[in-house]
Amino acid sequence: MPLVVVGSVAFDSVETPQASRDRVLGGSAVYFSLAARFFTHVRLVGVVGGDWPAEYTQLLQSQGVDTAALQVVPGAKTFFWRGRYLSNMNDRETLDVQLNVMASFNPVLPEELRRCKFLFLANGSTKMQLDVLSQCVGPMLTVADTMDHWIRNEPKELRELMRRVDGLVLNDSEAKLLAEDENVLRAGRGLLEMGPRFIVIKKGEHGAMFFSKHEMYVLPAYPTERVVDPTGAGDSFAGGMMGYLSEQFDYSPETLKHAMAYGIVAASFTVEDFSVDRLLKITREDVDLRMEEYRRMLTF
Amino acid sequence: MPLVVVGSVAFDSVETPQASRDRVLGGSAVYFSLAARFFTHVRLVGVVGGDWPAEYTQLLQSQGVDTAALQVVPGAKTFFWRGRYLSNMNDRETLDVQLNVMASFNPVLPEELRRCKFLFLANGSTKMQLDVLSQCVGPMLTVADTMDHWIRNEPKELRELMRRVDGLVLNDSEAKLLAEDENVLRAGRGLLEMGPRFIVIKKGEHGAMFFSKHEMYVLPAYPTERVVDPTGAGDSFAGGMMGYLSEQFDYSPETLKHAMAYGIVAASFTVEDFSVDRLLKITREDVDLRMEEYRRMLTF
Repeated sequence: MPLVVVGSVAFDSVETPQASRDRVLGGSAVYFSLAARFFTHVRLVGVVGGDWPAEYTQLLQSQGVDTAALQVVPGAKTFFWRGRYLSNMNDRETLDVQLNVMASFNPVLPEELRRCKFLFLANGSTKMQLDVLSQCVGPMLTVADTMDHWIRNEPKELRELMRRVDGLVLNDSEAKLLAEDENVLRAGRGLLEMGPRFIVIKKGEHGAMFFSKHEMYVLPAYPTERVVDPTGAGDSFAGGMMGYLSEQFDYSPETLKHAMAYGIVAASFTVEDFSVDRLLKITREDVDLRMEEYRRMLTF
Repeated sequence: MPLVVVGSVAFDSVETPQASRDRVLGGSAVYFSLAARFFTHVRLVGVVGGDWPAEYTQLLQSQGVDTAALQVVPGAKTFFWRGRYLSNMNDRETLDVQLNVMASFNPVLPEELRRCKFLFLANGSTKMQLDVLSQCVGPMLTVADTMDHWIRNEPKELRELMRRVDGLVLNDSEAKLLAEDENVLRAGRGLLEMGPRFIVIKKGEHGAMFFSKHEMYVLPAYPTERVVDPTGAGDSFAGGMMGYLSEQFDYSPETLKHAMAYGIVAASFTVEDFSVDRLLKITREDVDLRMEEYRRMLTF
């Protein structure tokens, strides 16, 4: 079942204590798509400027990602982010953000995409996310990501979004901020009260937590020694999770738990190289092999 | 099979953002013993001053902890620690430490305890830990805990200890310090090279990691909403782990993994109240019930 993702497509410049990369392929919708395409047909909705290389679009297409709804605005510049990771490889500082063409990103979904059954609203303006949601007709599962900027600056819209989506995915620090509670468990439960059927709290190297009315659990990250660049791990997590749900055409509690595990496995690959390099080198078989290792790790 | 623990017996004064307790029962050997006694007969080796209430000794005895080797030094004062937890309930500051009678703690083990098969050297002077180890004859499994103070101040002794024990248990920040590596996975592997057959890295609210030559895994903490006082969680973890190993009279990889899980479950109870209050209110059945919930949480 096709999966639609709306989010950023970007150039990233990344510094880590070991190495750096300049203006490489990035953006939430890109990481999401390249993690989700192991499971399902992904349709990417985004916008780039005239500086966007056609090779990047071809690269996405070669991986089975549908880029028909990737809008190119000639004369404008693509979203750009520059960041630096501290020596623990977990904390990072943003050195530069140039929204460029993303500043006025108000996607109009083609007719076919409006009738999609699985929709992921990657991190972006809450107003835009609400607008996309309004365009969709009878989706089966809608999940949104958000971040501190929108929690602080579009609180009213975010509350409305939470009443309208099925699931919300966000970082632990963002969950605490949004729920106004320093205890991540209480924060998760508090966010449930605001509307979504389920909340997923991403904890970076410490895995992810799931909250619904009926259950709560935490799954650890898949431990990988080779952490080269954590950029995009959260978006890859969401891609693995939504990709699997879309493939299964189901979001029962059991399927959601498997989807969480696939998200964790997808993220563990992403961090093993810069940009989307590692995701491009693996197959569904690699994902399933690691999934089995992950499951074995948690069995006793 | 009896389990011997050598460690601190203390008065703790604890402040949390919600409440505080003054001079309550604490110490590494106390938390350890009260977590391990669900599984096995525990023999506590420690020292207290003349200010130690006989009721505390009776309390330990009433829980099946053998206190015959708990030395009372009249005229001296019991080890005292005062600390304050920050609002995240994970970070803490030590406000006061009075070693008192612990400063000259050099236990001489009774003959019977020297022939114990399972020995846990709770956090304490590395020299003292080495001395206790030398007194023991043919233990089957010896595991030690340590902390930053000894890593910094008794590095040579700690290296010797690591060549002589089977297992080392320590916090993630301590593992990074000792291995001189900010990556916790590489740190764990590095510590293995220093001698022990296995390394357990405690990550507080994020669970624990296990390293041996043949495997490496991470298990998340059991998520409990009711975090009242984290003091003693690490020692309770060690108690649950060693208690189960001692009960099974085995430390195969499978048994060690179960033991890790029992340690995590034991720690999850400890944090749910001040001091050892929660541990005193539960039974082996409660431990096993939560163990089943924990196992279910990790099954998909």
